[in-house]
Amino acid sequence: MKNEGFIEIDYSKMKFKKIGIGVLGYGFMGKVHSNAYRKIPFSFEAPSAFPELIAMGGRNRARLEDIAARFEYRGVYTDWRRMISDKRIEVFDNCTPEKPLGMTVMEAKRMRDAVIKSGVKHMCCHNYRFIPAVRLARSLIEEGALGTIYQFRGSYLQEVGHDPSAPTESVWYASGTKSGVLLGIGCHLIDIARYLVGEIHAVSGMVKTFNSIRRNSAGEQEKVSADEGNIALIEFSCGAIGTLESSGVSTGRKNSLNWEINGSKASISFDLEDLNHLQVYSAETPKDKIAGFANVTVTEAYHPLHTIILPHGHNAGWEYGHLHALNHFINCVVNDRPVEPHGATFEDGYRIQLIMQKILDSSQSGRRMEIQY
Amino acid sequence: MKNEGFIEIDYSKMKFKKIGIGVLGYGFMGKVHSNAYRKIPFSFEAPSAFPELIAMGGRNRARLEDIAARFEYRGVYTDWRRMISDKRIEVFDNCTPEKPLGMTVMEAKRMRDAVIKSGVKHMCCHNYRFIPAVRLARSLIEEGALGTIYQFRGSYLQEVGHDPSAPTESVWYASGTKSGVLLGIGCHLIDIARYLVGEIHAVSGMVKTFNSIRRNSAGEQEKVSADEGNIALIEFSCGAIGTLESSGVSTGRKNSLNWEINGSKASISFDLEDLNHLQVYSAETPKDKIAGFANVTVTEAYHPLHTIILPHGHNAGWEYGHLHALNHFINCVVNDRPVEPHGATFEDGYRIQLIMQKILDSSQSGRRMEIQY
Amino acid sequence: MKNEGFIEIDYSKMKFKKIGIGVLGYGFMGKVHSNAYRKIPFSFEAPSAFPELIAMGGRNRARLEDIAARFEYRGVYTDWRRMISDKRIEVFDNCTPEKPLGMTVMEAKRMRDAVIKSGVKHMCCHNYRFIPAVRLARSLIEEGALGTIYQFRGSYLQEVGHDPSAPTESVWYASGTKSGVLLGIGCHLIDIARYLVGEIHAVSGMVKTFNSIRRNSAGEQEKVSADEGNIALIEFSCGAIGTLESSGVSTGRKNSLNWEINGSKASISFDLEDLNHLQVYSAETPKDKIAGFANVTVTEAYHPLHTIILPHGHNAGWEYGHLHALNHFINCVVNDRPVEPHGATFEDGYRIQLIMQKILDSSQSGRRMEIQY
Amino acid sequence: MKNEGFIEIDYSKMKFKKIGIGVLGYGFMGKVHSNAYRKIPFSFEAPSAFPELIAMGGRNRARLEDIAARFEYRGVYTDWRRMISDKRIEVFDNCTPEKPLGMTVMEAKRMRDAVIKSGVKHMCCHNYRFIPAVRLARSLIEEGALGTIYQFRGSYLQEVGHDPSAPTESVWYASGTKSGVLLGIGCHLIDIARYLVGEIHAVSGMVKTFNSIRRNSAGEQEKVSADEGNIALIEFSCGAIGTLESSGVSTGRKNSLNWEINGSKASISFDLEDLNHLQVYSAETPKDKIAGFANVTVTEAYHPLHTIILPHGHNAGWEYGHLHALNHFINCVVNDRPVEPHGATFEDGYRIQLIMQKILDSSQSGRRMEIQY
Repeated sequence: MKNEGFIEIDYSKMKFKKIGIGVLGYGFMGKVHSNAYRKIPFSFEAPSAFPELIAMGGRNRARLEDIAARFEYRGVYTDWRRMISDKRIEVFDNCTPEKPLGMTVMEAKRMRDAVIKSGVKHMCCHNYRFIPAVRLARSLIEEGALGTIYQFRGSYLQEVGHDPSAPTESVWYASGTKSGVLLGIGCHLIDIARYLVGEIHAVSGMVKTFNSIRRNSAGEQEKVSADEGNIALIEFSCGAIGTLESSGVSTGRKNSLNWEINGSKASISFDLEDLNHLQVYSAETPKDKIAGFANVTVTEAYHPLHTIILPHGHNAGWEYGHLHALNHFINCVVNDRPVEPHGATFEDGYRIQLIMQKILDSSQSGRRMEIQY
Repeated sequence: MKNEGFIEIDYSKMKFKKIGIGVLGYGFMGKVHSNAYRKIPFSFEAPSAFPELIAMGGRNRARLEDIAARFEYRGVYTDWRRMISDKRIEVFDNCTPEKPLGMTVMEAKRMRDAVIKSGVKHMCCHNYRFIPAVRLARSLIEEGALGTIYQFRGSYLQEVGHDPSAPTESVWYASGTKSGVLLGIGCHLIDIARYLVGEIHAVSGMVKTFNSIRRNSAGEQEKVSADEGNIALIEFSCGAIGTLESSGVSTGRKNSLNWEINGSKASISFDLEDLNHLQVYSAETPKDKIAGFANVTVTEAYHPLHTIILPHGHNAGWEYGHLHALNHFINCVVNDRPVEPHGATFEDGYRIQLIMQKILDSSQSGRRMEIQY
Repeated sequence: MKNEGFIEIDYSKMKFKKIGIGVLGYGFMGKVHSNAYRKIPFSFEAPSAFPELIAMGGRNRARLEDIAARFEYRGVYTDWRRMISDKRIEVFDNCTPEKPLGMTVMEAKRMRDAVIKSGVKHMCCHNYRFIPAVRLARSLIEEGALGTIYQFRGSYLQEVGHDPSAPTESVWYASGTKSGVLLGIGCHLIDIARYLVGEIHAVSGMVKTFNSIRRNSAGEQEKVSADEGNIALIEFSCGAIGTLESSGVSTGRKNSLNWEINGSKASISFDLEDLNHLQVYSAETPKDKIAGFANVTVTEAYHPLHTIILPHGHNAGWEYGHLHALNHFINCVVNDRPVEPHGATFEDGYRIQLIMQKILDSSQSGRRMEIQY
Repeated sequence: MKNEGFIEIDYSKMKFKKIGIGVLGYGFMGKVHSNAYRKIPFSFEAPSAFPELIAMGGRNRARLEDIAARFEYRGVYTDWRRMISDKRIEVFDNCTPEKPLGMTVMEAKRMRDAVIKSGVKHMCCHNYRFIPAVRLARSLIEEGALGTIYQFRGSYLQEVGHDPSAPTESVWYASGTKSGVLLGIGCHLIDIARYLVGEIHAVSGMVKTFNSIRRNSAGEQEKVSADEGNIALIEFSCGAIGTLESSGVSTGRKNSLNWEINGSKASISFDLEDLNHLQVYSAETPKDKIAGFANVTVTEAYHPLHTIILPHGHNAGWEYGHLHALNHFINCVVNDRPVEPHGATFEDGYRIQLIMQKILDSSQSGRRMEIQY
């Protein structure tokens, strides 16, 4: 060691490849995506590129600048149309709250057609595919560890609306124009079902608004038309059957996206409230000794989606889904790789929207709906 | 203490009321019911009556006598028609394996009508209602602790048929004439849903046979027509919605009858694989401190269905459902009390069978079925 | 099937071997042991002998006769000295509440010497050795699945005395002459440690009475000298180290006898509050896939200590430890087999008492105590 | 919204207070601390100051610059003596791997005396105090929810050294000069015990090296003198007793820092492998209904140590302990507030080291050691 003083880092000489990022939206998702971009450089030994946070977009300039500065963006846009023309932005990341992909199935289809036509690399940020335990589930299925899949049972349970006297403003699905629980969180569950088990070809659905009149914080009655709970029976193309349920009135369930898959050789289950673990029962384990659901801690270097910042046994937080999803997308962009199968495309987004529409239609008609994509 | 020698108990002077029992069947259920009768006298401080085991019925006399003698029955019958005429038998307990109540809905209806007409005290032994944790759930609901009930999600999962190469003889639902998973175990789940949440007025169902060809142990192919898995979306008369699922191919699930109920004020959940506990989340607990699903050990003297043989914290086994169910029935007979609401009647049995039939019909037609009782 | 009427069982012709049982005590243990004897005939396909309940002993004749009659004993004794001379009694089962083996280590030693000298078959009913999950643990250890054992950490936690204002009568260890928590429940934990890991050769102990003054239900102050909590560091002869803790003031813990054993190849853990399961982590399972603590449901026919009354996945209750323990002892008596290693002998009882005394001595002296047996 | 183009953020006009940070070390801790500093600005609505990453220090310049650049430090130092003279660095954060505070108790004492004399604001980064569930535990204790504390039982279990054939290089405590398991991880457990229950005044200890000979990856035998497992019986000044155990050979335990505290009114327990939850049993909950260990999800806005980036029910990762600890320290520095009681001081560091030394001494002497601070 020489007796050296302060050595300024000459960033111009650093060999890291850069990629320009623009994030539209500074709310929950805008923050979570920005956090992920900031963490990519030090979370992986050799990221494909280091995100350069070019601009954040939003309508309230004061609040926007405040948030953007905390992430050290270079600047902001208050007009998304101007933002998308900024040539420095190589990844345009839409973090506005709207779900699903389009306002209607038809719009989603047009969006899908447009991206295909343009050839632009694109992804729907279905972050839960990128939870390490979910990725491990996918690998187990891919390598045949489950054998033939028989059943999938999944639910996404939240409690936000359980109290009928809670003011509408505190219940995300209860105010006027917003989508209900199916569109708001059910989409994640449908995505996971398709990602793990495959395409869905028929649904029987039921949606329900339990508290159709609520009061806002001023005490005025408001009509709630969004669904507060919904259930679908589904048939997969592979022959498996299952249930999809989402709820905004499951008292005590904070953010429980949970599912179980039963296959002829093994079963697996997962709950987002315990996201570092996958439960695995393998019928091929010596039965008389140690066959039981194993609580697999998915935090090891030999597991998928490991980061260098969290060694052996150190739990990842919920935000790691986004970290891995966005790192994956940057990798696809930089190295021109296909976004699928791990990343969801607009094709997936369109299909998920179609499935949700069929669930709504089936609830109306009382009939099982076949789905043609 | 006097220096007394052996004091023979003069049973003729004991003040215990007796009740004569006849059990038809010496298989699994015959044994479990007989065990319950034997335990009643010493499980409760003051049972309504002590069972006298008069006779066990069955077809294979040698095996029947062997089993009956282990429970100290006075005798056996090889002809059930003779058995039902035995005047000493005050409780005739049919433990033959057939489920549900009748071979068809119409037959079940006739059976219901017959018992009503005869006025005989009767019960379907839905033992899971008599698990202490389930009874605690019922009391919480009755006293309004859950508020408005929104959702019920239940499944009864077993693994017996998960391996397609398992011989048909080892898979209870796979041989010729037997009923499938819906009739065999789904009935218990429907019963619990009705017992806890109330009447079901509509269903959308799906049933599935995943392995429709199996081999018997001689290697011969056999066609399996019984369902191996089934799901129903249900609507309760009270406005709640829910799912009912039963499966014989859920690898790793031994005997998991599990359910969760979400109400506006509290949620509760239960799994038969952990039968001494009820999970309770009460939104009325101080939220910032200790609101969470509480793992309530239902083994205390202040809990329902306590026994004197198992004090504070000593876990009951699965057989306690039968112990309490049969003790309840004897109490109803001796004291001429109504069997319901805790005991299931033939009316319940008929309705459960009707619901199952509607699930099967709905699976065929792809339509939601309203149910008229 | 012939049209046969009632066939009386001719018990004189039944080929079952009988064994005469006498149980001294009609309290908790008297009931639990009697229950076990009653269940032996129908819990196993071919028990070594069927218990004949000859006599129950106790001091309060009225209460004694009431209890004895519920189990269908032939008679009772109010004088244990007369009882032990009854030649029909082949197994004399002392269910009086006193623990440990003797009033002092010296007395325990004399008792051990006496049984050895007499050559009588004898057993201390350490029922927790006979929980199926504990027996599975023992087999895993015996066959080397754990490799070298490094550590044992066990505790037996109850809550009975947690509230300082609870009247002394409600706290079993708080009234005058009774033994404290170490002698009352700690003995079970020491027994399990020795049964699974082997002999203990040194201890450092600490015992504590947290609430040394309590009030009885009449409001009078009473001095409590019994320990309410105790801990010991232990060294096993095999080189493993560990902790033993028992507590009567562990608020919320009902009857939690729990332990974990870490070996070089696997770890196992158990909690009596979840007695049908053993947690097993095997480092030899494919690490990158499914290594995790497996929740092994120990209820299968291929598991040790299975009963014919509870098939696949049907949970046993706490009483099954006694059922298996007493069935084992009868088997040893009838077939003249050694009680050990699965049954505990008076030698074990003496050693456990010596270990407890050393823990008490060490707590006084503040020194680690080596133990010479 | 005006039709505005790119608006560059004028950081010179942002009103955020800044604080200059220097981090010595670029290994695991250097990365984790740097990550925390980066996240402070967007994790809290109004942080006391925004960290400015001035310099990272380390010996290997190439590796150092690579890591430092990923966190966007301005520069690096290869000589810590030069680094500590850099006036821009207001918080000097020593992330070198050495634990505990000093090489010896005496050295720790001198360090404590030096910081007291200098009056410099300082903290030992005991990050586990800053896990939200641990902080909730502390508040429950402070407000008396536990009543009188009787017992603490804690263990910190890892598995790194369980396999005797693992090369020494892969086992952090096994190579030459490093400290063992007690010094390496036991210190965290002692810190938590003192933070939650108070000062420790006596210990009886036992330390053990199970595999005293290992091989390095070149196959050469090496002597291991570091302890691989250790246990201490402890007495707190408040009258509570407890155990402290740490292990590097607990097969299957990844990073399990777990503890349970029993008080006269409530018990609480925690496991770092499930860090978003605190288990709470309150004896003041209606006993006959819902008393049970409640699984409290500590992720709500009304819970301590909430961040704006993770709303309701979104799980925090392990790194959040450091985020909150370092944010706390910056707050103390900027607003001249005392670091304690939530932050650990060098006084705490010294005392922890003294306790560890007494555990080692007690293991040698076999005697309980009183501790004078």
